[in-house]
Amino acid sequence: MRIAVLGGDGFVGWPTVLHLSEAGHEVHIIDNLSRRWIDTELGVQSLTPMDSVQERCRIWHEVTGRRIHFHLIDVAKDYEIFKAWLTGHRPDAIIHFAEQRAAPYSMKTDRHKVYTVNNNVSATHNVLAAMVETGVDAHLVHLGTMGVYGYSTIGAAIPEGYLPVDIERLDGQKVEQEILYPTRPGSVYHMTKSLDQILFQFYAQNDGLRITDLHQGIVWGTHTDQTRRHAQLINRFDYDGDYGTVLNRFLIQAAIGYPLTVHGTGGQTRAFIHVQDSVRCIELALGDAPARGERVKIFNQMTETHRVRDLAEMIAKMTGAKVSYLPNPRKEAAENELIVKNDQFLELGLNPTTLAEGLLEEVVEVAKKFAHRVDRSRVPAVSGWTKELGARVDRDPEGKALREVS
Amino acid sequence: MRIAVLGGDGFVGWPTVLHLSEAGHEVHIIDNLSRRWIDTELGVQSLTPMDSVQERCRIWHEVTGRRIHFHLIDVAKDYEIFKAWLTGHRPDAIIHFAEQRAAPYSMKTDRHKVYTVNNNVSATHNVLAAMVETGVDAHLVHLGTMGVYGYSTIGAAIPEGYLPVDIERLDGQKVEQEILYPTRPGSVYHMTKSLDQILFQFYAQNDGLRITDLHQGIVWGTHTDQTRRHAQLINRFDYDGDYGTVLNRFLIQAAIGYPLTVHGTGGQTRAFIHVQDSVRCIELALGDAPARGERVKIFNQMTETHRVRDLAEMIAKMTGAKVSYLPNPRKEAAENELIVKNDQFLELGLNPTTLAEGLLEEVVEVAKKFAHRVDRSRVPAVSGWTKELGARVDRDPEGKALREVS
Repeated sequence: MRIAVLGGDGFVGWPTVLHLSEAGHEVHIIDNLSRRWIDTELGVQSLTPMDSVQERCRIWHEVTGRRIHFHLIDVAKDYEIFKAWLTGHRPDAIIHFAEQRAAPYSMKTDRHKVYTVNNNVSATHNVLAAMVETGVDAHLVHLGTMGVYGYSTIGAAIPEGYLPVDIERLDGQKVEQEILYPTRPGSVYHMTKSLDQILFQFYAQNDGLRITDLHQGIVWGTHTDQTRRHAQLINRFDYDGDYGTVLNRFLIQAAIGYPLTVHGTGGQTRAFIHVQDSVRCIELALGDAPARGERVKIFNQMTETHRVRDLAEMIAKMTGAKVSYLPNPRKEAAENELIVKNDQFLELGLNPTTLAEGLLEEVVEVAKKFAHRVDRSRVPAVSGWTKELGARVDRDPEGKALREVS
Repeated sequence: MRIAVLGGDGFVGWPTVLHLSEAGHEVHIIDNLSRRWIDTELGVQSLTPMDSVQERCRIWHEVTGRRIHFHLIDVAKDYEIFKAWLTGHRPDAIIHFAEQRAAPYSMKTDRHKVYTVNNNVSATHNVLAAMVETGVDAHLVHLGTMGVYGYSTIGAAIPEGYLPVDIERLDGQKVEQEILYPTRPGSVYHMTKSLDQILFQFYAQNDGLRITDLHQGIVWGTHTDQTRRHAQLINRFDYDGDYGTVLNRFLIQAAIGYPLTVHGTGGQTRAFIHVQDSVRCIELALGDAPARGERVKIFNQMTETHRVRDLAEMIAKMTGAKVSYLPNPRKEAAENELIVKNDQFLELGLNPTTLAEGLLEEVVEVAKKFAHRVDRSRVPAVSGWTKELGARVDRDPEGKALREVS
């Protein structure tokens, strides 16, 4: 297949590109490199030293003989350029990662809220409008998030996108309908993925576009079979308070002797998936496209759920790290249950990589190797969901400022 | 109250501004005048001759002694300018009409789809982000549409925004929850109002913004008590295939001796409201704000439902006009039922203005007076929902081309 990977230079995008190239597909990265610019804005860098996307593609060619094509296009802004690219290349599939993906970044200031909404909505809608206009009948695979479901529960399992409900008719009879799960996003970032769902529903219904939406859990790990093949193919690895995600952050914190930062009681239950499974799931989804006229196919792309404090305690035990309970900068329930269905990927043959000590230790090893690249002051998560929550944030979980005074 | 009316130069915006000014409020119009630009783009004009917004405000002052303030701001693009305005004026209420509001325009070409999504989403989100950032605790009243509900029915009445459903828990017990009505918009324009709903839900939940969303039916009529007060206060009145709406278009077509253009079987049932009731509803909603922390308050702003072909036949009988059944450029069900609840406005004291011959004739009189301003070639609705539907559109319901040949 000819596959366009929008956002193919990112944390899950890059290993997906390599995985699909290895599998024999003709892969085109379309990226505006905004994630590299945001590193510059925030004054942080990937823990792992990343080469330019062009250099990464060159190395891949050297190692495997396979070509990955890179096109610098901003799908959110360059509608006509993207449309021309689509007309010229007519891909069989489009994988869409091209959105700002950090909840804390999306809540940082009003400027970041506005950027996230404008960028993510325009990117998704431009892709859809261009597909209709050019008549390119590609299978669109989008990376969504488990966060669209929200985390308040009534003891029901979270289905894969569609929820059966009973509705009372005028005659008093109840009838069953399957509806898009009532969304309850918890940040501006998550909200944009809820907006995407409505865009997908409309374009599948009106234009018969074939769309798969993957509601992904929190991705952990760093290497995949392909990124391991050369030092310069290494994946991006975020440790900072905006882009670092919970499990990987605990592992990095353990590696650099930083307290494991748990927000609130740590009673939040979240869904997780290893990056190796992420790329495998995307490949499985690609092979299982809906038909024209079918509704959007939704998968829950996760393999296990864990309570945040259980993860912290497990990693503390494994590494000897200390756990610090900090005020929560997010507006969310202190504790929640989470039961998630993921039958579809299991049926397609996914063999889940669950939390095993070996893999956790591998991440700690990577983090130790590059620990000299860490700016410790960028480790705390300081973006408040409201001004009141922001004012209570602990910006110094190490107590360094205090030590300096004494 | 100090009230900002975003989009206060438009078809419902302008009479709302006058109504609230007359009621003693300090009214500020914020508008980018995009609707006047779109007239220019399409090469059409309001059937009624409209003065500039500045001139309209001057006339209102002459007639009533009251000032209406006009600020040229594009809320979708000029985020910082709007925020500065908000900081300087701190309104008690904001009425938000500032969105591209025609379904056929939103489906015209990919350019119009992209414009509608970017403009409408950015406008709404900018307003919300600016309210949070400035801490202005205004009541936000937004003009939504009945179209967010969609028109497929299972024999249940359409509630005011929230639908009670039964959901099965893991233990097999069913529990009732009230959810945001599962949206099923039928055009890119309607879809943007579905996106707005998600934005409102998030900002009410995260920031305690006080928001009312009015799901309006199709507005008909042209005069209100205030627009009648001076010839130059007259309201905009659209007859073209993009911005003209169904009932008003039938009346105009009758006035100029054009066939009444029914799309498909005319079996579509739609909700209607007279423009005089529209402005009254907005005033009622203003006086009934939700509390901080409450969920978004949703009203169905409509007073009656009618089947399109019944309206056409009624007006044909009243005026002697001919009815033409044309291919439908929209992708929609040929026939649908529609039962809508509007108890909340009735409880607040709305006394509905229903379809009465006198009011219908008033519209025909206005149309006849300005019939010389009509470009008959712009009367047909020619925007196709898909390319296939667009190709079947009848661009000449009068059969003029045919007559010219013979």
